[in-house]
Amino acid sequence: MSISSGQQGPLFLGIDGGGSKCRVVLVTADNRLLGEGLGGPANPLRGMSVATESILTATTQALQAAGLPATAISQLIVGAGLAGVNMPHYFQLFSSWQHPFAEFHLTSDLHIACIGAHNGGEGAVIIAGTGSCGLADVKGKILDIGGHGFPYGDNGSGAWFGMQLLHHVLLAKDQLAPATLMTDLLAEAVGVSATLDLVNHFMHATPTIFARYAPLVFTAAEQGDAVALQIVQQGAAFINQIAHKLFELQPPRFSMIGGLAYKLVPYLDPLVQQRLTPALAAPEFGAVWYARQQHAFFHSAQVATVNQRSE
Amino acid sequence: MSISSGQQGPLFLGIDGGGSKCRVVLVTADNRLLGEGLGGPANPLRGMSVATESILTATTQALQAAGLPATAISQLIVGAGLAGVNMPHYFQLFSSWQHPFAEFHLTSDLHIACIGAHNGGEGAVIIAGTGSCGLADVKGKILDIGGHGFPYGDNGSGAWFGMQLLHHVLLAKDQLAPATLMTDLLAEAVGVSATLDLVNHFMHATPTIFARYAPLVFTAAEQGDAVALQIVQQGAAFINQIAHKLFELQPPRFSMIGGLAYKLVPYLDPLVQQRLTPALAAPEFGAVWYARQQHAFFHSAQVATVNQRSE
Repeated sequence: MSISSGQQGPLFLGIDGGGSKCRVVLVTADNRLLGEGLGGPANPLRGMSVATESILTATTQALQAAGLPATAISQLIVGAGLAGVNMPHYFQLFSSWQHPFAEFHLTSDLHIACIGAHNGGEGAVIIAGTGSCGLADVKGKILDIGGHGFPYGDNGSGAWFGMQLLHHVLLAKDQLAPATLMTDLLAEAVGVSATLDLVNHFMHATPTIFARYAPLVFTAAEQGDAVALQIVQQGAAFINQIAHKLFELQPPRFSMIGGLAYKLVPYLDPLVQQRLTPALAAPEFGAVWYARQQHAFFHSAQVATVNQRSE
Repeated sequence: MSISSGQQGPLFLGIDGGGSKCRVVLVTADNRLLGEGLGGPANPLRGMSVATESILTATTQALQAAGLPATAISQLIVGAGLAGVNMPHYFQLFSSWQHPFAEFHLTSDLHIACIGAHNGGEGAVIIAGTGSCGLADVKGKILDIGGHGFPYGDNGSGAWFGMQLLHHVLLAKDQLAPATLMTDLLAEAVGVSATLDLVNHFMHATPTIFARYAPLVFTAAEQGDAVALQIVQQGAAFINQIAHKLFELQPPRFSMIGGLAYKLVPYLDPLVQQRLTPALAAPEFGAVWYARQQHAFFHSAQVATVNQRSE
């Protein structure tokens, strides 16, 4: 089968698969964007069938956007950065997926974020979104910090800020801690204010739901609320720790991404702020870069094998 | 039908229903223990069918232990203190249960714990088990503190200590915090030591599972570990706060119960330790007391109504 959109060489698909959504981009060999797609969670911790369905939904969308037939899926060279596959069990589970692509190159979401932020060059990245984690990739050495999950990890993340918000509002309501502006902000955002109603609302809350309320802590801090400011400073201190640990590898570039990054940056250690460089590309383009690199590597390895055989 | 074990007056059943198990006692009108029973979780947050099944399983056991027929269930006057029913939604849900008893008087697990600890007298109680909460019942006024749930509440509880343990071990493994004895203690207890294996073990951990590892923090603190000692002091400070808040009602007695209480007590504020009095009876006997009191109240109310009618 030949693909009929006139491009030269293979097509690459980059997948950024997180715990709440999955974003894909379809590009030509010369990096022209043909289409994009969006799916549900692609984190194997939520179950393999959910994750693979999210990926296939987003891929189908991207092929349609590109005006390509569904059958073109079998020609795609895919790079996928998925949350959770830093754990060997889930890496193996996903590696044994009977995928419909020509090639499927798997790594973590944090790794493709770092590749994207520095266009494949060396550097470090911190993600401060629903979760928090950092990675430095310098001189062939990869340092991976945090991202262990909520509530025992991910300090300084959106989920952590949302949980701290609720924690301090409940303390204030029990008169175990000073009153805080966050009490009114949370009541307004949730639509209920009684303690039992708030508890009922958050009883089965996922990290994503906690993270939704994280910006309220910053709103209160900006209005001079001492309790909120202390939470922001605690969260920022944790992100500073990750940054300084990553700096030990002396990364030439350093970026912060994720929904909470722009809120956190003003509260970070000036030494950390000074080293910030803008992310050059989004994680899904980091995944494309990874697919190209792995494809080239395997291709040259095959050529080498053929050469050895013909000697 | 008449019950054939020769006791005078009605039979009372006391139920202490928590998030992990449900304990019942069956006593005569003159407080003689006839039988006991144990069931699964009786917290309606886990689902009404699980909760009612746990209660019925434990009740059947108690009737069997007493040598009574299963049909005797319809004559029991029941007091039930259940976790979660402090929330109006779950109180209503349980109140509309088509129970098989003669009477079913419902209140919270914290309330029966307080009644039990002070044999129906005035007083205050703190539960430090899987969760943490406190209640004072003085001069007709009830003050209810904490117990809002994990992870945004329940500081100083077993679940909180277990989560802090894992949090600090992961920080140490990421070299973001000092080394701690807890790392080896946790590895030994769980049977794995690599970061990813630990994360995998606790990924879907319930409060009960976190609470299982809480004692390790105290073990490390007793061996002079500075990180563990700081966690213990933080947890104790939270329990102190609850205690001082309850003391505002000037309770004549004050008890601490729950699996973590005896570990926490030595670290509490001396003023809190000095006010401690032993719990006089277990919560399930508090539930029996509640059943008697409510039964007498409704009985006298009916008599009063009859008297009014005949006037």
